[in-house]
Amino acid sequence: MTPSLDAAYAAELDAADELAPFRARFVDDDPDLIYLDGNSLGRLPLAATELANDLVRQQWGGRLIRGWNEGWFTAPEHLGAKIAQLIGAHPDEVLVADSTSVNLFKLAVAALRAQAGRSRIISDDLNFPSDLYVLQGVIDLLGHQHALDVIASPDGIHGPVEAILDRLDGNAALLTLSHTVFKSGYTYDMAAISAAARAAGALTLWDLSHSVGAVPVDLEAAGADLAVGCCYKYLNGGPGAPAFLYVRRELQERLVNPIAGWMGQRDLFAFGLAYQPAQGIRRFLSGTPSVVSLGLIEPGVDLLLEAGMARLRAKSERQSAYLIELWAQLLSPLGFTLNSPRLPEWRGSHVSLGHPQALGIDLALIRELGVLPDFRAPANIRLGIAPIYNSFSEIHSAVMSMRQIVLEGRHEKYMAEAPTVT
Amino acid sequence: MTPSLDAAYAAELDAADELAPFRARFVDDDPDLIYLDGNSLGRLPLAATELANDLVRQQWGGRLIRGWNEGWFTAPEHLGAKIAQLIGAHPDEVLVADSTSVNLFKLAVAALRAQAGRSRIISDDLNFPSDLYVLQGVIDLLGHQHALDVIASPDGIHGPVEAILDRLDGNAALLTLSHTVFKSGYTYDMAAISAAARAAGALTLWDLSHSVGAVPVDLEAAGADLAVGCCYKYLNGGPGAPAFLYVRRELQERLVNPIAGWMGQRDLFAFGLAYQPAQGIRRFLSGTPSVVSLGLIEPGVDLLLEAGMARLRAKSERQSAYLIELWAQLLSPLGFTLNSPRLPEWRGSHVSLGHPQALGIDLALIRELGVLPDFRAPANIRLGIAPIYNSFSEIHSAVMSMRQIVLEGRHEKYMAEAPTVT
Repeated sequence: MTPSLDAAYAAELDAADELAPFRARFVDDDPDLIYLDGNSLGRLPLAATELANDLVRQQWGGRLIRGWNEGWFTAPEHLGAKIAQLIGAHPDEVLVADSTSVNLFKLAVAALRAQAGRSRIISDDLNFPSDLYVLQGVIDLLGHQHALDVIASPDGIHGPVEAILDRLDGNAALLTLSHTVFKSGYTYDMAAISAAARAAGALTLWDLSHSVGAVPVDLEAAGADLAVGCCYKYLNGGPGAPAFLYVRRELQERLVNPIAGWMGQRDLFAFGLAYQPAQGIRRFLSGTPSVVSLGLIEPGVDLLLEAGMARLRAKSERQSAYLIELWAQLLSPLGFTLNSPRLPEWRGSHVSLGHPQALGIDLALIRELGVLPDFRAPANIRLGIAPIYNSFSEIHSAVMSMRQIVLEGRHEKYMAEAPTVT
Repeated sequence: MTPSLDAAYAAELDAADELAPFRARFVDDDPDLIYLDGNSLGRLPLAATELANDLVRQQWGGRLIRGWNEGWFTAPEHLGAKIAQLIGAHPDEVLVADSTSVNLFKLAVAALRAQAGRSRIISDDLNFPSDLYVLQGVIDLLGHQHALDVIASPDGIHGPVEAILDRLDGNAALLTLSHTVFKSGYTYDMAAISAAARAAGALTLWDLSHSVGAVPVDLEAAGADLAVGCCYKYLNGGPGAPAFLYVRRELQERLVNPIAGWMGQRDLFAFGLAYQPAQGIRRFLSGTPSVVSLGLIEPGVDLLLEAGMARLRAKSERQSAYLIELWAQLLSPLGFTLNSPRLPEWRGSHVSLGHPQALGIDLALIRELGVLPDFRAPANIRLGIAPIYNSFSEIHSAVMSMRQIVLEGRHEKYMAEAPTVT
């Protein structure tokens, strides 16, 4: 194959892609839709359609309360053990429960209370805003004994690694970062940073939402302490699917879940009046899990396990490199900037392109050209590449569509609209 | 109709029941199953089966990320406004989000922080243990400035009303009770107790899990401040369905949600780094809601609204009175005790019967006679009456089955088993 800028070359890349058959394992109602938003909401696995019917019609409808003894109770650990395989954790270190924000709250509070005498929480301004909001709430709740140090990225793209390492001193209680950041896709070297944090006595809490399922994660090898992550992006678990949390084995008995609900109780059917946390990871459960949304996570995780993270990462790297090459040749001359790292080891699986008229271009892509990326203020088009179902041809089409829009001025009429979620 | 103890009379009562046609609006795979556990997990509405397919196959599968702008974002308020009609709240006072435990945590923390200088939290030992666990965790978290006063019921059945009223002094910060308690079904006079709490300057936080959908609730008329409740019991919202929370309008701007996630942010797509709570009830959201489980709540609520709470309550009262009459005549002589209040105004919609061998009787009911109640330690059989789908004949059959089991000694072989969720 001779690299070129035309569609035929993209088709050649697709023909050589050993993961291409996975596309048929997902629902695809509209073959003309180029969906590049799997970093926000992953596609529906075919198997999840059948499972939804089973969960609702057979399990809820037919088994009723008996379903609790037939898999619902153990679902948080059962799914946690599967996700553990994607993130280098032991099966008894991961649970699926609540939302990413609630899990972050639980683990951040637990970590800070275990770090008496240390007051600094270190994060960066590339972190997902919800994470920073949760941390602000935690500080307010714990009586302002802590200070949140939100370190600025030097360029809005790359993580401020040196500054983070500088702040890791004897006063550092908690270092919490998005492993892959939501706007630029910059991905931290988790092992190097976790090692430095540990050496300083700080606990680490990683948000894996934008890396899990797209970027290999090895929490144990990295020496990470705590993690949370989202199941509806690259895991393809469904809209608002419950999230996961990870607590390193050695920390499980030391940390206290601040939301002490009955699902984390040692013997929940004794109905004793005093809270006694369960042993192990289950103590980080709080209330009753949403069984249907929880159950629907499994087919997407199974597909990733079947494809294998190494193959997924290899394809994702090839795809993001291909997209960046097309950008350099076809979009850069039209005023698009690359708002993601150039170095592949610093990239997650989405690529952000900036343009002064990004909002109008985004809307023109969606409404006129059947391309669905997402927009992030002030002027970023995020192109999410889900290697399990996105093709090289889709990337090529998206780039050609952006080029066409700008060349024809089709974006200008949309510039006055307010951005929404897509 | 001449009252009698035979099945024919139960059939007459069913023939005269204007709500009987609602039974056909629920899935019923096994017409021989007598399901008396709707107070733990309600039946599946037929409409929810179709909706599950729509939510998963059409919305997630077909609309993908666009679903957020087509109803998912507003679902917490949309469903909250419907539930508001069942509990005497304004539409902008109720949200569906998270679990009951997480919502209780959020509101209890918010209430206590708004009540500086007052240290007493008042509850009772009939409250659902998870609520007490959450409160214990909250006290531990807030630095033990508060004390939890768990007032003992005089008899394990009735609420300790006088003792509660006694404790409502200038040091009372928060009074939190289950409106209908989980074991005996005792139901508090919400208006009288809320008025006393308000007069003393304490905030009230009611757990409506075992009353909503079965007992009329009028939060506004009662002057209640805060409430939480479960959507998977009498609301028929599905296993582990997200829960609801209520915050009286005047308190919404005064209270701070301790889990400050982005769904409660004023302008969530500005992605600003500083948390700014949304106006009104939305500030009590935290993370992204589980869309599928959330959406499935609506059909059950719609059925209750269609049936009307007044008619549902009237039928429920007739049914629990009928059950108690059968107990007095047929079960009391066999050693069964009534562990629920005799006075109808003190009863919710489930009735607890005690028996020294209740566990064995419960298991024999389930395994040999197709009756599904639930068991609560140490020796309670809870018979949940969901007036929207349970018939008088089912109640009659359940009583006759309990009688048969004890008369034939069919329960004895099960006594060594450990209790489980059913």
